[in-house]
Amino acid sequence: MLIAIPGNEAHAARLGERLGVEVLVPEVRHFPDGEMYVRLPREAIAGDVAIVGNLEANSFLQVAFLAGTARDLGAVRVGLVAPYLAYMRQDACFNAGEGVTARYFARLVSSTVDWLVTVDPHLHRLDSLDRVYSIPTTIARAAPAIARWIADEVRDPVLVGPDAESAQWVSAVADRLGAPYVILEKTRRGDRDVSVAWAGAGPAAPPQLDGHTPVLIDDIVSTGRTMLEATRRLRAAGTAAPMCIAIHAVFADAVGDELVAAGASGIITCDTIAHASNRICVADPIADAVRSRL
Amino acid sequence: MLIAIPGNEAHAARLGERLGVEVLVPEVRHFPDGEMYVRLPREAIAGDVAIVGNLEANSFLQVAFLAGTARDLGAVRVGLVAPYLAYMRQDACFNAGEGVTARYFARLVSSTVDWLVTVDPHLHRLDSLDRVYSIPTTIARAAPAIARWIADEVRDPVLVGPDAESAQWVSAVADRLGAPYVILEKTRRGDRDVSVAWAGAGPAAPPQLDGHTPVLIDDIVSTGRTMLEATRRLRAAGTAAPMCIAIHAVFADAVGDELVAAGASGIITCDTIAHASNRICVADPIADAVRSRL
Repeated sequence: MLIAIPGNEAHAARLGERLGVEVLVPEVRHFPDGEMYVRLPREAIAGDVAIVGNLEANSFLQVAFLAGTARDLGAVRVGLVAPYLAYMRQDACFNAGEGVTARYFARLVSSTVDWLVTVDPHLHRLDSLDRVYSIPTTIARAAPAIARWIADEVRDPVLVGPDAESAQWVSAVADRLGAPYVILEKTRRGDRDVSVAWAGAGPAAPPQLDGHTPVLIDDIVSTGRTMLEATRRLRAAGTAAPMCIAIHAVFADAVGDELVAAGASGIITCDTIAHASNRICVADPIADAVRSRL
Repeated sequence: MLIAIPGNEAHAARLGERLGVEVLVPEVRHFPDGEMYVRLPREAIAGDVAIVGNLEANSFLQVAFLAGTARDLGAVRVGLVAPYLAYMRQDACFNAGEGVTARYFARLVSSTVDWLVTVDPHLHRLDSLDRVYSIPTTIARAAPAIARWIADEVRDPVLVGPDAESAQWVSAVADRLGAPYVILEKTRRGDRDVSVAWAGAGPAAPPQLDGHTPVLIDDIVSTGRTMLEATRRLRAAGTAAPMCIAIHAVFADAVGDELVAAGASGIITCDTIAHASNRICVADPIADAVRSRL
């Protein structure tokens, strides 16, 4: 049985269909003082359940309350299917006194649910979710679905990673496609202030780009500054218009129009976070991962 | 050492002054994607710390992140001083499938900090915080400060509780004042729909009210419907204008003007939640309770 976090009913329905299990839509409302009320449309729950949805800004309490309610009704094990896993980016202390929220958040989630399934989490300095999550986790991979989309839609692609962090996703897609790839070098000076250069500091574009269509791939597009600088760097070197692909459409800022103005042919995303740019469905790999847990 | 939750700097300063300990004001900001960043202005922390502030709607993650950061910096034990304790009202399952958020919230807080100090929590069906909190808790009492305010400001008071739940606070204040008190009967039909009657269902006001000034006392005023109906009931029985006192100024709705229009002389509150109606300072009993923990 699945429980949809409010706002994630579409995710839960896609998953419930593939798994052939029922989806519960809970009642979640707020009292006049702002406190949350949750109710599941059941008098009892037998067996295991999975709560489905992204842990956006302030939905952690929702998950904790839905998990508690499911357990009170009799659920044996309660899992979480979060297609986008929040709080993976502050994974180290860069300045004295900073909180390592990736660790604190993982500890809270681990104390609340029994297992976790997510799609390509932002593992950068951490090499495994096990470094911060104490519960069993399974990672569903978007690379096969992205590779299929590129094979169908882009002629002679060359994959481009805008920074070293993106190399893991770019190489996974390139391997499946049998396509060449290039990784750029990013320097970040602030939340919305980055620059991107050719690795090795040479001024010219690598020869792999000649006559190919660049496909920029990153796991998360938030402010879009990295994709934008990478697009500008490619176009300044005389490449064809790059297609931009992100796994997770975090999109803190509207970035599509700016990318096109900078010379990209567009941006498309996987459907881990609902957004108009979603073109690549990853419900199948999520269903496979959940099947091994339910 | 105290750490102020953002928005609770005044609470922390009042407490730090009484305890003679330093107050840290953390840096809390949000990344463009909405995730929270926390930083404490220290390279190390020795000994115990207390985080000070109310756990309003969505500040639980702040407390978890500040506690994690303090521990990483070396704090031995981390306590929480929440003058108003949220999520104490849904303390039972009234309809099948409802979550008992008082229990789930207490479990989260208990997994995050080592001890808790609060002022007069809304213990109604639960007879003790120990029923839901697994960490040591200390309750500071507002009754002595409320009794002193009434003794100074109200001539010939008779205390009135608007419902059975309020009897514990009304009787505690009445005992200290040596004043008579009356408890009314409330029927709740919805978040903003209540009625109030004389206990025993008689139409006439009890004789204790004759020639006295009624002082309505409740722990929480949120929508203000209960205070409003109690005020109307008193004035309809021909009493003097009641003064309304709440411990916690939750104030989901603006209620002051409506209470005065209904015949109250005004509403004042303790300073557990910062509000223009605060008249009664409870920093001393909070400091006493924290002193026993730090």
